[in-house]
Amino acid sequence: MTKRPTSPTGRPWHAAWLPDEALRPAGRRRVRLLADGDDPVLTTLRDELVRATGLHGGAVVHDERAHLTLALASDARVLPALSGAAGRALDLVRRPGVDGELGRQGFVVGRDGEALVVVAATPVGLLAGWHHVLRTGEPLFDEQVFDGVSGLVEHLPAVAIRKLDHWDNIAADSPMGPVERGYAGASLWFADGRLRDDLTRVHDYARLLAHVGVNAVCVNNVNVHERESALLTSGLDQVARLAEVFRAQGIRTYLAVDFAAPITSGALTTSDPLDDDVRAWWADAAAGVHAAVPDFGGFVVKADSEGRPGPFAYGRSHADGANLLARALAPYGGTVFWRAFVYDHRQDWRDRSTDRARAAYDHFTPLDGQFDENVVVQVKLGPVDFQVREPLSPLIAAMPRTRLAMELQVTQEYTGQQRHACYLAPLWREALDFRPWGPLDPARPGRTVADVVRGDGTLAGALAAVANVGDDPFWTGHPLAQANLYAYGRLAWDPTLAPSALLDEWLALTFPGCDERVRATVHAVLDDSWRVYESYTAPLGVGFMVKPNGHYGPDVDGYEYSPWGTYHFADRDGIGVDRTRATGTGFTGQYPAPWCDVYESLDTCPDELLLFFHHVPYTHVLHSGSTVVQHVYDTHVAGAQATERMRETWREVRGLVPDAVYARVAERLDEQVRSAAEWRDQVNTYFWRKSGIPDPAGRVIP
Amino acid sequence: MTKRPTSPTGRPWHAAWLPDEALRPAGRRRVRLLADGDDPVLTTLRDELVRATGLHGGAVVHDERAHLTLALASDARVLPALSGAAGRALDLVRRPGVDGELGRQGFVVGRDGEALVVVAATPVGLLAGWHHVLRTGEPLFDEQVFDGVSGLVEHLPAVAIRKLDHWDNIAADSPMGPVERGYAGASLWFADGRLRDDLTRVHDYARLLAHVGVNAVCVNNVNVHERESALLTSGLDQVARLAEVFRAQGIRTYLAVDFAAPITSGALTTSDPLDDDVRAWWADAAAGVHAAVPDFGGFVVKADSEGRPGPFAYGRSHADGANLLARALAPYGGTVFWRAFVYDHRQDWRDRSTDRARAAYDHFTPLDGQFDENVVVQVKLGPVDFQVREPLSPLIAAMPRTRLAMELQVTQEYTGQQRHACYLAPLWREALDFRPWGPLDPARPGRTVADVVRGDGTLAGALAAVANVGDDPFWTGHPLAQANLYAYGRLAWDPTLAPSALLDEWLALTFPGCDERVRATVHAVLDDSWRVYESYTAPLGVGFMVKPNGHYGPDVDGYEYSPWGTYHFADRDGIGVDRTRATGTGFTGQYPAPWCDVYESLDTCPDELLLFFHHVPYTHVLHSGSTVVQHVYDTHVAGAQATERMRETWREVRGLVPDAVYARVAERLDEQVRSAAEWRDQVNTYFWRKSGIPDPAGRVIP
Repeated sequence: MTKRPTSPTGRPWHAAWLPDEALRPAGRRRVRLLADGDDPVLTTLRDELVRATGLHGGAVVHDERAHLTLALASDARVLPALSGAAGRALDLVRRPGVDGELGRQGFVVGRDGEALVVVAATPVGLLAGWHHVLRTGEPLFDEQVFDGVSGLVEHLPAVAIRKLDHWDNIAADSPMGPVERGYAGASLWFADGRLRDDLTRVHDYARLLAHVGVNAVCVNNVNVHERESALLTSGLDQVARLAEVFRAQGIRTYLAVDFAAPITSGALTTSDPLDDDVRAWWADAAAGVHAAVPDFGGFVVKADSEGRPGPFAYGRSHADGANLLARALAPYGGTVFWRAFVYDHRQDWRDRSTDRARAAYDHFTPLDGQFDENVVVQVKLGPVDFQVREPLSPLIAAMPRTRLAMELQVTQEYTGQQRHACYLAPLWREALDFRPWGPLDPARPGRTVADVVRGDGTLAGALAAVANVGDDPFWTGHPLAQANLYAYGRLAWDPTLAPSALLDEWLALTFPGCDERVRATVHAVLDDSWRVYESYTAPLGVGFMVKPNGHYGPDVDGYEYSPWGTYHFADRDGIGVDRTRATGTGFTGQYPAPWCDVYESLDTCPDELLLFFHHVPYTHVLHSGSTVVQHVYDTHVAGAQATERMRETWREVRGLVPDAVYARVAERLDEQVRSAAEWRDQVNTYFWRKSGIPDPAGRVIP
Repeated sequence: MTKRPTSPTGRPWHAAWLPDEALRPAGRRRVRLLADGDDPVLTTLRDELVRATGLHGGAVVHDERAHLTLALASDARVLPALSGAAGRALDLVRRPGVDGELGRQGFVVGRDGEALVVVAATPVGLLAGWHHVLRTGEPLFDEQVFDGVSGLVEHLPAVAIRKLDHWDNIAADSPMGPVERGYAGASLWFADGRLRDDLTRVHDYARLLAHVGVNAVCVNNVNVHERESALLTSGLDQVARLAEVFRAQGIRTYLAVDFAAPITSGALTTSDPLDDDVRAWWADAAAGVHAAVPDFGGFVVKADSEGRPGPFAYGRSHADGANLLARALAPYGGTVFWRAFVYDHRQDWRDRSTDRARAAYDHFTPLDGQFDENVVVQVKLGPVDFQVREPLSPLIAAMPRTRLAMELQVTQEYTGQQRHACYLAPLWREALDFRPWGPLDPARPGRTVADVVRGDGTLAGALAAVANVGDDPFWTGHPLAQANLYAYGRLAWDPTLAPSALLDEWLALTFPGCDERVRATVHAVLDDSWRVYESYTAPLGVGFMVKPNGHYGPDVDGYEYSPWGTYHFADRDGIGVDRTRATGTGFTGQYPAPWCDVYESLDTCPDELLLFFHHVPYTHVLHSGSTVVQHVYDTHVAGAQATERMRETWREVRGLVPDAVYARVAERLDEQVRSAAEWRDQVNTYFWRKSGIPDPAGRVIP
């Protein structure tokens, strides 16, 4: 048994990146807050300042002799010396459309003589500024930081809505467990079939999210079953209690809703989006939830997807469906996140003409321009389903007149389920940096996915991610998986941050003042861990060689004859999915140039996506110079070896991190080493038995 | 939704083979019972006679003018004219050892002038005689039936204990469901975590079992968990209530027990069979259960098997373990059924030297002669696990000094789970008829497995089977699966009965007076259904191409990289398990001559077991003249076609059987057709992709 982690706060869960030590930048300093009123976020900020200064020998002051001043731009007491910062903050929010919204959430950092000042136009922006001070720490107070930057630095989030989707179930006996695809214990807020009485931990969680910039939380599973659907009606008191906790950290609460709710939670016999009674039902529901939760964020919807009800049942489009909900929410400023994860999950494996990868694009591009302005279409990063390696979903580049969110998966469903160390920031950075129109984008040179989801004009986009937390003492099962949650929030705020730098941030906060060996070790374990995971699992972008249902561990043919549309078509001669326009499913044609041609041709298709786009012989020679089968053998052996090195490396920090953290990570690494060897052997044996080609390196394949 | 079946008894479950109509042989006849006392079986018999005559216009009489006399041989009123039968009945029980025990359960049928007489030495024998009259019906009263058989016919069961094992769980949330490997609803006697209050249905079930001759029922799952283990201690009142119902039908109640019960249910820290406290604990437990259930049958034990505790933990043998329990039960006449299903269920799939098929023999043959006389070693029919086709377990021929039971599986875990029609009597008959020492058995010419499990001298053997019933209205999910339960009991009584004749018996009782088309149709559906199921599933004895865990539907590689020891080793060149002595695991050496040589050689190994014993190229030519791969293609296409014909055929009886029966069978046949096509396509595609050999018949393989 692993010991319970000790927390500086004395709570029986780990402090993650906000241990009391992390509040030290306020230490021995005089801090002043220029903002009045009982706004809950201001109240939170006041409490934070009192606590931080109290813990570390500073003081909250009310005069001008502060080392740090946090001020609302509109505060009458904003001193002349701060007016530049105040004016800048006000300028930000006065920009039109998307820019103004981002400005409301941001802050300006400047100096007033010897003192540091943070000015924002809203309490939320000011709280973000305070967390920035904590994170940036002592150097922020150094004069040279401001040299050459005119004394004032703006900090704005890249996207307006930075959301976490919790796939939490209320029903204690839910067949997918308390958290669907959760690997860190039960729900933080639901237990025994209802909201927990004690929300202390939710408060701590919300504070962690506020620190990294998450400002939207959907509190229940997108697969909405009966008990969870009732949150919208008879369960509103529970939603209100939960939302109060999040509101204090500047986070808006969302609900996943059942498209058939007018039938399942109401008394109607239809959920046809064009039916007047259905419209009225949703209008009532929206009014009800707004009355209980004045800052209610909106709905997240999985419709016509994997058996969930949706507008198709009535011959209506997904625009009809999304707009139905959007119009109900519009009077209250709510937003609908409508997932594009729509495909035929009862496919016949014999049918090679249907391609699940095509589905989202085929369903949604005809609807571009038809969605109301408070609808955001939420698109998974890849065209299939959160595999360790997929191309970017082409839908992200195909909806110029639609607000878009890209959905990431922080919970490691397909990347080791928080038993394997797999730092996902490099994967997300690759996606955010991707240029869907290539380097010579005709519309705007260098436009990236991050630019697309930021949005233009009034089309503010978003980032969404499936959360990876639970009531595990370490929040995330694997303590190092905290870094994924941390990095998600930070990248959503600033997609240009380097994964390695984010790891340094997380380390500095989580293990304050830790030995340099800790830093070096965590980097050695995590920096390359995503590619290591890729190397010993499904090769070359082929995906889905996992055990069905559970999705942990290898089963090379596990999905090969399933209805899920995820096949590799391996036979004795070769493997891969022909998605070319020339001879395959034509999926490559969903990409704009140059990618439609890059992926189409064997000459230019990147090795790591080869089997996603092409069916090739085992003897096909990669750009790397290796054959497919040799690449499989080599990478799988190397990947399993890398996990052994990771385990060795971790031993370096025994005694340098808390014992409970050390032990939990060590236990997980043991499992990763075991599992990686199993992956290596099953995959290599499979390819060997299929191809009959022995490993020229002479290694024995079982 | 299927309509609830109507039952002549007015009960909301199907009457199976004892509808009131089936009691008609007593119709309009005068029936006399010569037996006094309040023995519960006699009470049952009296009730049966009153009911049968009352329903059909007959009468129970007390004078000599009876058409049918049922008499205990010892009854003082046995008339002179019956003395021949009475004497014969008494002779039977006076035979020594096994023969006498069988005599106590049997009966003699004879004539007294115009009247039919049934004489038995015990109430149980007499009840069996009454059911014989019901089953045999009108012809029994015809004079010519007795021509040439000296007027007296003995009816004795083939084996003394004819047991059904119920894998029923008490815990409502048991991970394997209310009945492990049950496909017919929940337990007949456990519900909501305890024994049901209303045991009416158990009474009906016991009556059905009495009719077919089952005389032992183990009421809980061999995987004994906490709640079920407590039946032996705090739950004895429940066992007593249940046993009372079975006792009235001449059936003894058994409990599956946890070998670690002294720890888990008691206060000990060991369950070492040589520990005095452990001995005392079991002695107390046996005394307790005997006090509550005076005719308690004994224990069924799964030890050191699939994670269950056992004597290995203490370095003791299975003889030590079994004898521990046997000595506790001995004072009360109880028996221990000790399962031989012991193997390494955490095998490394890379390890080809370990052979699960060898395990039972390797573990148990060294112990032959060491088991107490009230221990029966219970051996599964095949060496692996109830596959549709396996060779006979060699252990059955290897324990001459041990009482043996062969265990069959009536529940269709691997044979279609009562969604597929699969009449198993032909499989069981093949096993019972098998001659382990060949036709030239040096010890006794023509000795069969039925002879082995009958036993010699004092070594009475047994038959055991896993039950296939639940609280489904039809008892067995698939109404036609009732025939499997019927056939099991009848074969246990008389292993020489023809499967086809048993089906006629079942039909005549279950659908009394039914149209000849019903008979023809059920035969057309069931007679060959086992071989049909074999033909579209795992080919040539290779086994285990099923979906892991659930065991329903195809997954050709599903167990190939698992820890369960069930592999087929298919590569691009060939498939099968080399179990020869020459080059393989040596398993063939566990058989006596001639089978050790028959199976060893490709020249003589039967086609249907080829891949069980040999790894061969896909191009290997079978005795049938076909190659392996061609055989696979052909049989799978033909098998799937056969299920379509079964479905067509069933339509013939619409309106001729009760609507609910018709509809339920029709629904199951739809699923069988769908599933068989899935099996066909997955298996054929797998072999095609592996072998690269197209179907010369030109059929398109997906």
